[in-house]
Amino acid sequence: MLVVMKKDSTEQELAGVIRKLAQSGLNGHMSKGMERTVIGVVGQTYPELRDTLELLSGVDEVIPISKPYKLSSREFQPEGTVITVGDVVIGGDELTVIAGPCAAETEKQVLDTARAVKAAGANILRGGAFKPSTSPYQFRGLGKQGLEMLALARAETGLPFITEVLTPHDVELVAEYADILQIGARNMQNFNLLDEVGKGRKPVMLKRGMSATIQEWLLSAEYILSQGNRQLLLCERGIRTFETYTRNTLDISAIPIIKRLSHLPIIGDPSHGTGKWHLVTPLALAVVAAGADGLMIEVHPNPDQALKDGAQSLTFENFEQLMQQLAPVAASVGRRMPIKPEEEHGE
Amino acid sequence: MLVVMKKDSTEQELAGVIRKLAQSGLNGHMSKGMERTVIGVVGQTYPELRDTLELLSGVDEVIPISKPYKLSSREFQPEGTVITVGDVVIGGDELTVIAGPCAAETEKQVLDTARAVKAAGANILRGGAFKPSTSPYQFRGLGKQGLEMLALARAETGLPFITEVLTPHDVELVAEYADILQIGARNMQNFNLLDEVGKGRKPVMLKRGMSATIQEWLLSAEYILSQGNRQLLLCERGIRTFETYTRNTLDISAIPIIKRLSHLPIIGDPSHGTGKWHLVTPLALAVVAAGADGLMIEVHPNPDQALKDGAQSLTFENFEQLMQQLAPVAASVGRRMPIKPEEEHGE
Amino acid sequence: MLVVMKKDSTEQELAGVIRKLAQSGLNGHMSKGMERTVIGVVGQTYPELRDTLELLSGVDEVIPISKPYKLSSREFQPEGTVITVGDVVIGGDELTVIAGPCAAETEKQVLDTARAVKAAGANILRGGAFKPSTSPYQFRGLGKQGLEMLALARAETGLPFITEVLTPHDVELVAEYADILQIGARNMQNFNLLDEVGKGRKPVMLKRGMSATIQEWLLSAEYILSQGNRQLLLCERGIRTFETYTRNTLDISAIPIIKRLSHLPIIGDPSHGTGKWHLVTPLALAVVAAGADGLMIEVHPNPDQALKDGAQSLTFENFEQLMQQLAPVAASVGRRMPIKPEEEHGE
Amino acid sequence: MLVVMKKDSTEQELAGVIRKLAQSGLNGHMSKGMERTVIGVVGQTYPELRDTLELLSGVDEVIPISKPYKLSSREFQPEGTVITVGDVVIGGDELTVIAGPCAAETEKQVLDTARAVKAAGANILRGGAFKPSTSPYQFRGLGKQGLEMLALARAETGLPFITEVLTPHDVELVAEYADILQIGARNMQNFNLLDEVGKGRKPVMLKRGMSATIQEWLLSAEYILSQGNRQLLLCERGIRTFETYTRNTLDISAIPIIKRLSHLPIIGDPSHGTGKWHLVTPLALAVVAAGADGLMIEVHPNPDQALKDGAQSLTFENFEQLMQQLAPVAASVGRRMPIKPEEEHGE
Repeated sequence: MLVVMKKDSTEQELAGVIRKLAQSGLNGHMSKGMERTVIGVVGQTYPELRDTLELLSGVDEVIPISKPYKLSSREFQPEGTVITVGDVVIGGDELTVIAGPCAAETEKQVLDTARAVKAAGANILRGGAFKPSTSPYQFRGLGKQGLEMLALARAETGLPFITEVLTPHDVELVAEYADILQIGARNMQNFNLLDEVGKGRKPVMLKRGMSATIQEWLLSAEYILSQGNRQLLLCERGIRTFETYTRNTLDISAIPIIKRLSHLPIIGDPSHGTGKWHLVTPLALAVVAAGADGLMIEVHPNPDQALKDGAQSLTFENFEQLMQQLAPVAASVGRRMPIKPEEEHGE
Repeated sequence: MLVVMKKDSTEQELAGVIRKLAQSGLNGHMSKGMERTVIGVVGQTYPELRDTLELLSGVDEVIPISKPYKLSSREFQPEGTVITVGDVVIGGDELTVIAGPCAAETEKQVLDTARAVKAAGANILRGGAFKPSTSPYQFRGLGKQGLEMLALARAETGLPFITEVLTPHDVELVAEYADILQIGARNMQNFNLLDEVGKGRKPVMLKRGMSATIQEWLLSAEYILSQGNRQLLLCERGIRTFETYTRNTLDISAIPIIKRLSHLPIIGDPSHGTGKWHLVTPLALAVVAAGADGLMIEVHPNPDQALKDGAQSLTFENFEQLMQQLAPVAASVGRRMPIKPEEEHGE
Repeated sequence: MLVVMKKDSTEQELAGVIRKLAQSGLNGHMSKGMERTVIGVVGQTYPELRDTLELLSGVDEVIPISKPYKLSSREFQPEGTVITVGDVVIGGDELTVIAGPCAAETEKQVLDTARAVKAAGANILRGGAFKPSTSPYQFRGLGKQGLEMLALARAETGLPFITEVLTPHDVELVAEYADILQIGARNMQNFNLLDEVGKGRKPVMLKRGMSATIQEWLLSAEYILSQGNRQLLLCERGIRTFETYTRNTLDISAIPIIKRLSHLPIIGDPSHGTGKWHLVTPLALAVVAAGADGLMIEVHPNPDQALKDGAQSLTFENFEQLMQQLAPVAASVGRRMPIKPEEEHGE
Repeated sequence: MLVVMKKDSTEQELAGVIRKLAQSGLNGHMSKGMERTVIGVVGQTYPELRDTLELLSGVDEVIPISKPYKLSSREFQPEGTVITVGDVVIGGDELTVIAGPCAAETEKQVLDTARAVKAAGANILRGGAFKPSTSPYQFRGLGKQGLEMLALARAETGLPFITEVLTPHDVELVAEYADILQIGARNMQNFNLLDEVGKGRKPVMLKRGMSATIQEWLLSAEYILSQGNRQLLLCERGIRTFETYTRNTLDISAIPIIKRLSHLPIIGDPSHGTGKWHLVTPLALAVVAAGADGLMIEVHPNPDQALKDGAQSLTFENFEQLMQQLAPVAASVGRRMPIKPEEEHGE
């Protein structure tokens, strides 16, 4: 952090800044002789220190020069994080393909979808048991019953599963069932929830908030990491912009940016990122071409019967086509498709 | 909701839409003879029904024509909601002026601020005990100890107080102390939290999410109202845009829009809405001129010593000036300033 | 501008930066001894120099510390600019109220509106002769014929008029007729047009672009000022955000910000800023309460017959009510309403 | 367009709407018997008709159901537009790769770059002679001299070139030299300029405006097409969002959306779309994977010496690597790389 003093600042004002820094356990190295005096701040700063320093007399501007996140940064850990879930390795050469229905609705729907996505080559199952819903009058998920359906599908197919947890109180329950806990976009700054999943040891996938900058996203990751849980995966799922044709604007540039700034694996979710099934495949190809570690795709046996997010769900057939189109793209950027399982789970 | 069929849709496709509606307990009234066939949907619809219907064969577009919120709408309740907290009436002719520090830090800081804002004419005290914080390395509030400081300040000054609750688990505790529960911008779609405060009977203030449309905001209000709690107040606090000079862009148009669409009282928060103390007063005047029921203003004895949000906090002196400038503006739009208390509370 | 070197940067790299600065006619003052070496750049910099310096070996970050605009800044000219157009003084104590139809359609429409807005207290007439239109199939204005109608209305009522100019080629023609040339939001970065109106001596009103930051807006102002034309007025008319209820989001915080950063007068346009007539009056009051020098309001004899922007136009009656409501608000912030003319122009 | 009447609308109000439509040369087909009466509008409508109809008494809402653009739509022309420029076919199986410096600076710089990008496999040269520049104090291009440098490079290498035109007055001059005229993002709604390039027969590339919706972009395309010029190409170059890490947010979803809605070829510009050279290659791969017809890439012999946009320019070596990485991705989505020329132009 650099404190830029006003042109006409006094010695007293300079001393005031140094004093204020000392109160926060920080040192200030003064540098005069330029157009203005600039004070370099040494020590662990945080975003809001800037606000405080800007209020001091004689200060013109305060400029952050180091990043406010640490544990999530590639400076802190140069090699990429690798997460192992059952037989699946996230963050390695093999793509992670998470697929399944938006919400678990019936045992048959979950089982049929799990079998279909496995057959097409997905290596992780998704499905919502606790669903965030914009309106109180909509479907909000089956809760524990949904978790049981997903667990059954795992037993049948061998696919580990990921499911969303909405509130700290449910973390224990969801962690009993799920292989990966999902923090949804609306909860990216639900700090109590971040703390709670950070205290556990189940892998976590943190989705980017709808209006979160990349820096804020990494700060939310920092919450989880700083509680001790290092099994963390990020998911870009689109940001809110003025464009109305799509539900969100999938920010594919976030993928190489995260790869540069952080060691955490990152996948893309073109289903939520676009909101329209016919855009899912081209955006999925783009996500992988841009260097993502994987994809998350909504698949439903009958999208027009789905209780939630049917418009962005692929049919089994469309998902299979996506996987076929994906294979050469993955190869072209040096990624392996998930190895198709040997169907040993009784299909 | 209107279902617009494609130009070349068939009778079978029409029948399919009608059948699908019937499954959801809705009726469809067909209307041919126009350029295209349009089906009017009768019954209580919800946003995601649109997605489902758009997937049906022969459907070109689905258009919502009624609003997805009900209990929060002015159609449902033409007269404005009035909330009574102690001697304060929110939603009447008298402005509600909520003022105080971002966070409760020390007993002295809270008490001094409470006395100062009361003397200047505020009628409700604010102060954070549980603070959301972008970084895990920043101050997150004093918790219960902070609540006790605020309760003490209430006892001393007679001012009721509002404070934020971050997670369902804390609702009971916070409700024991506070007069109004605040749901912050980051939690506007924390639906479990909305449910929880909706089950209680303490008045709630729901801030608009950083990237929430007005319709989504009213749907979040609907969560609280539909649980039975009708003591609900809204607060516009700025939305996220591309402009970087301000922390957020205060959307003052939201004030007359909410007045038109809803019966709920609405106030404005120019402190968070701008992030800069020197913009607070002009925006506060604008908020009241636009028809708001009140204001929420951050005030701190020493903004440059504040643990949080100092840059947007007013000094006691600046807050007093704001109140003086506000008085004629309030009068010019037919609002009364809060009656200054008779200092009967031992100051 | 500050050049922050990487922690491990070498002497050669430092020398490279100094050399690069020298090539651009700038000096670099080095300051070591802090956590990192920082080079202060002395001389007139420009935004893209930052990009260039960031590419140099050993450079970590380049940070602008002075503003890239100069002639439009309050540092350059502490006292506010005052523009005199006929009897109207823009930027003084008296509010400037510009009113009239979106587009000049017929002689009668223009004359009737001019008389009505004058009677209600407006002091400048507006009306479009050259209209930007999103679709090529819509009305694009009457051109010279429209200018003649506006000139006739000026002759009849004594009101000076403002009208938009769309392209450099038309500047001469429009300047022959109009008292103030308007640069619309879509042309805020039409730099050839800015040059052209900058070369003339007719007062200019520069609207903010739909997605322009305040800094970009002031840089566009700089184009006009640097060509020699100092008769410049700014107009906030709403920015593009994710909210869809309003056509744009009127950024009222821009008003006190411009007052702080610049000496140029600023007015607000709640008609384009909201796109809905029923929001115009509350937002107009807010604009004035926030400290604007005036307003621009669309008024039409029959909004439902308007060829353009009827939905945001006020009827004569609604405009008269707006002016009545505005008077006490203006007074409450120390502004005088325009003096109503003595009707000496034959009405 | 559908006009939805209020629940309690009267026969007179219905008749008023029908009358109003008739005045605009449109028919209205009434359809009662639903929850509300809905009037279907038959005939060519335009966006602002909606505003006008919404003002009529008894009208609740007006809903567009047909697209306001026509000539640019895939309904109008199901097969994709193909543009032939010299030996290059845009919109076919072969990718179009446009590369070159942001601005033409010196003969040597342009020639060296043209040779390098040709050798690496680009098939069109880019270079700015007239440059839009946010600040009046920055480099604005060499004008005619720049055009001559580009023409010389074309003569030397055989590469056709594209360059931007900023103002209607320059269209004739630029068209004399260039093979394709570029309309930049800032001019997407410079309607006089659109008219002017629409009247000519030189191919045009229309970049998306920074805050333009896809519909507005296609309406701007409509301006050019409706003047008779059908040689039109679109270019996605990023939209303005709240994210500050990138200069813009490249909206890759626009590529499959344009492919669906329109017959016009579309390419992506990851240089402007990100503003950082190290993001160009991953985003270029993503653009092609998503189905684009080509790319536009900034390349400079010495990015750190560039007069403009050095930070987003690739070196010759980096561009060559990009092309090598692109080849398998292009193949994986069924596209051919441009055929490398037989170096017959004296290199």
